[in-house]
Amino acid sequence: MKSALLAASATGVFLFGLSAGTAQADEGMWTFDNFPAAKVEAAYGVKIDQPWLDKVRAASVRLTNGCSASVVSRQGLVLTNHHCVVDCVQDLSSAETDYVQDGFLTTAREQERKCPGQQAEILAEITDVTETIRAAGAGLSGQAFNRARDAAVARLEQETCAGDDRYRCQVVSLYRGGQFKLYKYRRYADVRLVFAPEIATAFFGGDPDNFNFPRFNLDVAFLRLYEDDKVVETPQHLTWVARAPEEGEATFVSGNPGSTGRLLTVAQLETQRDLAIPMGQLQRSELRGRLIGFSEVSAENKRVATDPLFGVENSFKVFFGRQFALNDAAFMADKRAAEAELKAKVAANRTLARQIGDPWSEIEAAQAAYAEHYLPYRQIEAAAGSGSDLLSYARTLVRAAHERAKPNTERLPEFADGRLPLVEKRLLDERPVDKNLEALYLRFWLSKTREYLTTDHPAVQQLLGSQSPEGLADDLASGSRLDDPAVRKALWDGGLPAIQASGDPMIALALRMDPLARQVREAWETDVEAPTARAAERVAAARFAAYGDAVYPDATFTLRLSYGQVQGWTHRGRTVPATTTFSGLYQRATGAAPYALAPRWIAAKDQLNPDTVYNFVTTNDIIGGNSGSPVINAKGEVLGAAFDGNIHSLGGDYGYDGELNRTVVAASSAATEALEKVYGLTGLLDELMGR
Amino acid sequence: MKSALLAASATGVFLFGLSAGTAQADEGMWTFDNFPAAKVEAAYGVKIDQPWLDKVRAASVRLTNGCSASVVSRQGLVLTNHHCVVDCVQDLSSAETDYVQDGFLTTAREQERKCPGQQAEILAEITDVTETIRAAGAGLSGQAFNRARDAAVARLEQETCAGDDRYRCQVVSLYRGGQFKLYKYRRYADVRLVFAPEIATAFFGGDPDNFNFPRFNLDVAFLRLYEDDKVVETPQHLTWVARAPEEGEATFVSGNPGSTGRLLTVAQLETQRDLAIPMGQLQRSELRGRLIGFSEVSAENKRVATDPLFGVENSFKVFFGRQFALNDAAFMADKRAAEAELKAKVAANRTLARQIGDPWSEIEAAQAAYAEHYLPYRQIEAAAGSGSDLLSYARTLVRAAHERAKPNTERLPEFADGRLPLVEKRLLDERPVDKNLEALYLRFWLSKTREYLTTDHPAVQQLLGSQSPEGLADDLASGSRLDDPAVRKALWDGGLPAIQASGDPMIALALRMDPLARQVREAWETDVEAPTARAAERVAAARFAAYGDAVYPDATFTLRLSYGQVQGWTHRGRTVPATTTFSGLYQRATGAAPYALAPRWIAAKDQLNPDTVYNFVTTNDIIGGNSGSPVINAKGEVLGAAFDGNIHSLGGDYGYDGELNRTVVAASSAATEALEKVYGLTGLLDELMGR
Repeated sequence: MKSALLAASATGVFLFGLSAGTAQADEGMWTFDNFPAAKVEAAYGVKIDQPWLDKVRAASVRLTNGCSASVVSRQGLVLTNHHCVVDCVQDLSSAETDYVQDGFLTTAREQERKCPGQQAEILAEITDVTETIRAAGAGLSGQAFNRARDAAVARLEQETCAGDDRYRCQVVSLYRGGQFKLYKYRRYADVRLVFAPEIATAFFGGDPDNFNFPRFNLDVAFLRLYEDDKVVETPQHLTWVARAPEEGEATFVSGNPGSTGRLLTVAQLETQRDLAIPMGQLQRSELRGRLIGFSEVSAENKRVATDPLFGVENSFKVFFGRQFALNDAAFMADKRAAEAELKAKVAANRTLARQIGDPWSEIEAAQAAYAEHYLPYRQIEAAAGSGSDLLSYARTLVRAAHERAKPNTERLPEFADGRLPLVEKRLLDERPVDKNLEALYLRFWLSKTREYLTTDHPAVQQLLGSQSPEGLADDLASGSRLDDPAVRKALWDGGLPAIQASGDPMIALALRMDPLARQVREAWETDVEAPTARAAERVAAARFAAYGDAVYPDATFTLRLSYGQVQGWTHRGRTVPATTTFSGLYQRATGAAPYALAPRWIAAKDQLNPDTVYNFVTTNDIIGGNSGSPVINAKGEVLGAAFDGNIHSLGGDYGYDGELNRTVVAASSAATEALEKVYGLTGLLDELMGR
Repeated sequence: MKSALLAASATGVFLFGLSAGTAQADEGMWTFDNFPAAKVEAAYGVKIDQPWLDKVRAASVRLTNGCSASVVSRQGLVLTNHHCVVDCVQDLSSAETDYVQDGFLTTAREQERKCPGQQAEILAEITDVTETIRAAGAGLSGQAFNRARDAAVARLEQETCAGDDRYRCQVVSLYRGGQFKLYKYRRYADVRLVFAPEIATAFFGGDPDNFNFPRFNLDVAFLRLYEDDKVVETPQHLTWVARAPEEGEATFVSGNPGSTGRLLTVAQLETQRDLAIPMGQLQRSELRGRLIGFSEVSAENKRVATDPLFGVENSFKVFFGRQFALNDAAFMADKRAAEAELKAKVAANRTLARQIGDPWSEIEAAQAAYAEHYLPYRQIEAAAGSGSDLLSYARTLVRAAHERAKPNTERLPEFADGRLPLVEKRLLDERPVDKNLEALYLRFWLSKTREYLTTDHPAVQQLLGSQSPEGLADDLASGSRLDDPAVRKALWDGGLPAIQASGDPMIALALRMDPLARQVREAWETDVEAPTARAAERVAAARFAAYGDAVYPDATFTLRLSYGQVQGWTHRGRTVPATTTFSGLYQRATGAAPYALAPRWIAAKDQLNPDTVYNFVTTNDIIGGNSGSPVINAKGEVLGAAFDGNIHSLGGDYGYDGELNRTVVAASSAATEALEKVYGLTGLLDELMGR
């Protein structure tokens, strides 16, 4: 359930040089219908035309666990990052067979195994629905505004995709409400694992090197699309190239950046800086420590906690970078200046000024409500029990039972008909549940909820009664049977009567907390989200009026294209080259984790060409969610898979600095060499090379 | 080795109303030679004269582990908090006998047991040495400035206390260099534990209730002063009273507030807000999680981690409060306004302006060096291996071996002759060492050092070589014999030759890191501390010129007196009464920790008067280090022991708000009732009552 999967890291450098105004050279996560092709041609002398865009779009894949990918063969083969499938690799492993440690290799279709909960989506069509959505909310405020818009969204999604399981429709808000578009995706609900290297290979250097460069990671994996138990034919695939990237070569990244806050107002950035990020980081750090403590108890604990710990450490670094970007006074001064410039442009035009009003002050006013509601909303609704699959199952079952009984347009938006197939898939796919790890998550959540809301808060009283967080958590984890998919299926099919008759303690907890959780959510949506959304649309309108479409929308985990080139960087007089090679990997290996080589790589050392380009960096502007994105040259060929950002891209949530921000890529040259000489997977290599 | 022991807590309230200018009603941690007696008489109609001050001072005790206390009988009996002796209680416990859980009760002198590392100090004399110190540093800068002043300090301390073990001398910087005073203490190096309640009684409500109010804690313990194995006669003791405090009654707190930052410039506060505090909190949170994970492994792990976990959680809450005070825009605006006012007063006086210059800009300029040096300084020197007793022993032994070979005035200040007795006592007193817990601290420190400095940092390379943090930590913890006091004694006595011949792996590590640690310390002192100290003295001079002695110095863990009254408070329309009673305790008990009553309290319920005042709050201005301070009425009688601050006092490091800030006190009325009816300690009670 990770959402920001792009690796980033914490270090001793706190200075960022991010732009706050309009897009600079190589900046931007552009939609495919507003790509600055002329600017790219002027900068790099390469032509990006409509057929190029159509071809790349048709081969670009969104993975619903929060990653990007691309189709790279005619038989539905999909390239992504190892860290995008590690949850699947972990789910397929057991105490006896640890694919995370040993790698997952297949040499025949029947060895390929379904990834639980995973769905692949390819964008087929975009329709502008701005007017319809705007009209639905006109004249309304607060919860009524939210619900009217949710209903319009549910209706549009249902009308366009209804009754055809092969498609998924989703209304997307761009430019923070400046535009609304209906995205129609071709949906593939059967995604199977083909190849994943050992974690020691994919994540060599581990958390300490995460987001540093030079890097030496085969953070690459392959999946395959299936439908009706047959391989999906994919003539629209990208071409794999085995050659190394060239310095200065133009590169394009097509993927789904998850979320950015580049268009947030200064008041919103301050709330992130002073409240939301620090709160998240403090809890994340403690959870990290608890998971480390858990891992140290036994080899089996260490195995089951590998992926969760990676997720927490990765998020920690992402937010560490964000925090220190926002703590930088010069950066905030730039943001203030850009906001003042935009306000001045509005004030200078009387008609515009009347139309826009002062949405900045409205957003600032909503920050007090944000501070007031944030903790209850976080602990009881938004991040309740985060990490516990059992609680997540129970809450989904209880909510769905209530919501599915209502007409489509009256439901909470995540239970609208158009969204139910993925909800159901995630709920019912079989996945292993470790009861000890479940208990850890629940103890953590319940104790932090009591700590931050205080013992006397009504929600805490209702959750705990006279029990301790530790006692209740252990009872819930050991007593619940929701780890059995058949039990979940029965409760899903049985609806509210089955839920209410269930004696499962986790269902009982979810039933007990649901009214309160809905209440804090309603307060949050009414007092924070709705006024912010209505004001942000007018900020967006001001921006369009001032700068036209020379701006790009904030990232929304929808398909974007960024451009740039293969290039190192220079910081404080030190130049970091653009590429690393296999020889660097062997030099960096110490034998002690996370700098220990996998046995296959020790054995293959003499067979490998030491000069093979392993990882490289480009100036492309990407962010979490872009993990696994294909890095493409001007001919539309795949040079590798983006898997990280460099140290300076830490603040990329809020701005981009072309001098220093870099995308880190696992090169197809390295994957080609390794598949042949380390893994002996000549069949897979032949498929990639179209042989 | 905790230093800020006053409990405080984290909650969902982020607004503080702290004063940033000169002292307001009840504000201030005043030195005994500048107590605002006239102001107190005007406000409360009580006379505090010199005999009163002398008497209270002579009975006020500083405990060298970071707490305060008071002498309350003629036979050297000392009142403090349970949480000030819990480290001692833990040290005296074993897997078989857990005094932390069961309480430590004595009925005869020979059952009283020495607290390892603990020393009690009573202030005997104050001398102004400002001119001597100033003269020593005149015309110097950087490291030379530091060393010249250190030498002057060592000389003064040595001259005044030399050769008399009964005294300890310490030069104290007040008003951030505005004054220097030589404090001469009567020193008691043999402090024995007389009484400590069960932790369930002392810390009922645990971390969740820490710093909330109403509270129900017998956070009280008794020690006794010994010398030459005999009880110390203490005719200068305070009188214990069994009666409850009265609403509105004037109260005085005499103790040693540890550290405040009320006189810091805005630039310094911003560095605390944006760098120092967040860095500390993120590490502290992870350590907390690791300790919790460790505790969950076994009952013995839980036992040995009880005190460390309490320490980490307590510090977490203290800094949580500081962070959110500094994140409050209104509070920082007040600080900016106060600074601007002071600057304007300086600018308005030409002579003063010439004399003061612009120390604010100098301090601001030093913040870049702070940011640059902070992480190496923290990880390699200031907080290196924090929590590991073995590493602390090794570093002390290695440093001392080098420093003791130099003349007194040329040493690092902490190894000057005047300081050595306490260094030696702490090093050589016998204390239990848990090797598993040691390994945890070392793994944590080494892995965080690598994370924050990066794998390629020279210090990290030197510490780890080709080992992993986990592997090296486990080797060090299991291989070192420094847990044996005889081994430490031999190395202390043997000096550098013994150290260099030692095969102990921890000594080897300390030897390896010492040159690097000295180097980062020198960079820190030269580029950060020295320029800050020189500028801060001129800020202090400006403040004296502008406000005279209507200001009090920042806390420095030296004796202070604060005044106030017994009073509840009203916040957002809700009034919190000033007192709680035993009946409230029984109502709040759930049976689940930390709301479970100790068995003795369950048994005694019917014997106790339910209306006995248990805890109460006053308007006194205190901070961490004040824990255990006597709360005294106008007659000089003891009404209880201060043990906490309320939620609003969280930001007390930077300011005081008399409307909301409260000191939380364990009442002598409750202790009296409990000693008789719960613990049956009539002998102790007779001693307290002077019977």
